[in-house]
Amino acid sequence: MIGLYLEEIEEGRVVDLGSHHFTKEAILAFATQYDPQPFHLDEEAARKGPFGVLSASGWHTASAWMKHYVASNQRAEAKLRAEGRVPAPVGPSPGFTNLRWLKPVTPGDTVTYRSTVTGKRELKSRPGWGLVFTLNEGFNQRGELVFSFEGKVLTPRRPA
Amino acid sequence: MIGLYLEEIEEGRVVDLGSHHFTKEAILAFATQYDPQPFHLDEEAARKGPFGVLSASGWHTASAWMKHYVASNQRAEAKLRAEGRVPAPVGPSPGFTNLRWLKPVTPGDTVTYRSTVTGKRELKSRPGWGLVFTLNEGFNQRGELVFSFEGKVLTPRRPA
Repeated sequence: MIGLYLEEIEEGRVVDLGSHHFTKEAILAFATQYDPQPFHLDEEAARKGPFGVLSASGWHTASAWMKHYVASNQRAEAKLRAEGRVPAPVGPSPGFTNLRWLKPVTPGDTVTYRSTVTGKRELKSRPGWGLVFTLNEGFNQRGELVFSFEGKVLTPRRPA
Repeated sequence: MIGLYLEEIEEGRVVDLGSHHFTKEAILAFATQYDPQPFHLDEEAARKGPFGVLSASGWHTASAWMKHYVASNQRAEAKLRAEGRVPAPVGPSPGFTNLRWLKPVTPGDTVTYRSTVTGKRELKSRPGWGLVFTLNEGFNQRGELVFSFEGKVLTPRRPA
């Protein structure tokens, strides 16, 4: 996570991942390819749909989180390298849980994502590595929580 | 779910959602837009990465599940309408949990998705509606489980 080793990541740390603007074009493009439900594709159909408004596929909101998570890590790693430090490699994730889409994301919305460290532990099964637990959230331009999930990511200990 | 009302959905029912072929082009296109990590973008970098092979973004595998879930529902609803029946509207999902990516999905892989009903219950808080719980899985062409998550979906009772 952002190039830090397990020892350097403290519970409560909040990482601002940046903001994503959802255009109508991008919402339609994603939905056409991966989630062609009428309320993601057509404004008239969406008015009669479950949210009453055209909304982004939940997987679009999640994928945009990933985009900004990756960019945030890459920015942090470049900064560490510029300081002459060796960033920790970002490990894969064994999985995510409690994905929730709390409010529709609609054309013109800007969602700001953040990731909060909720805990960490060493892995007895994998010496030199630990798990970092995070709460990931996306807020729209009105400050409303629209998306959240709990993640965990394999993170190396600092080499001896 | 596939146009059925809460009363018609029995625990243990397995719905075959169909298969998705992951081309290298589609893997790169998704990763470029939403998950630009080197092991999703470049074969040489992927060889040194956590999986040793170029792999699809986990969100790509999840989004392809959605595509086939939607198509499966639309096929089932069309069939019910052709029989003169009124399909149950597919309700939104309050969330998913335990998303796991168990093996990498690589260029040329074909993932077959299925959804198994693991339970259902009526909602006291929302008369006329219930929740259907599902286990969703994706298997590659070697029969290996590559992706799974537990879903729940709001499902209406049959109108009186």
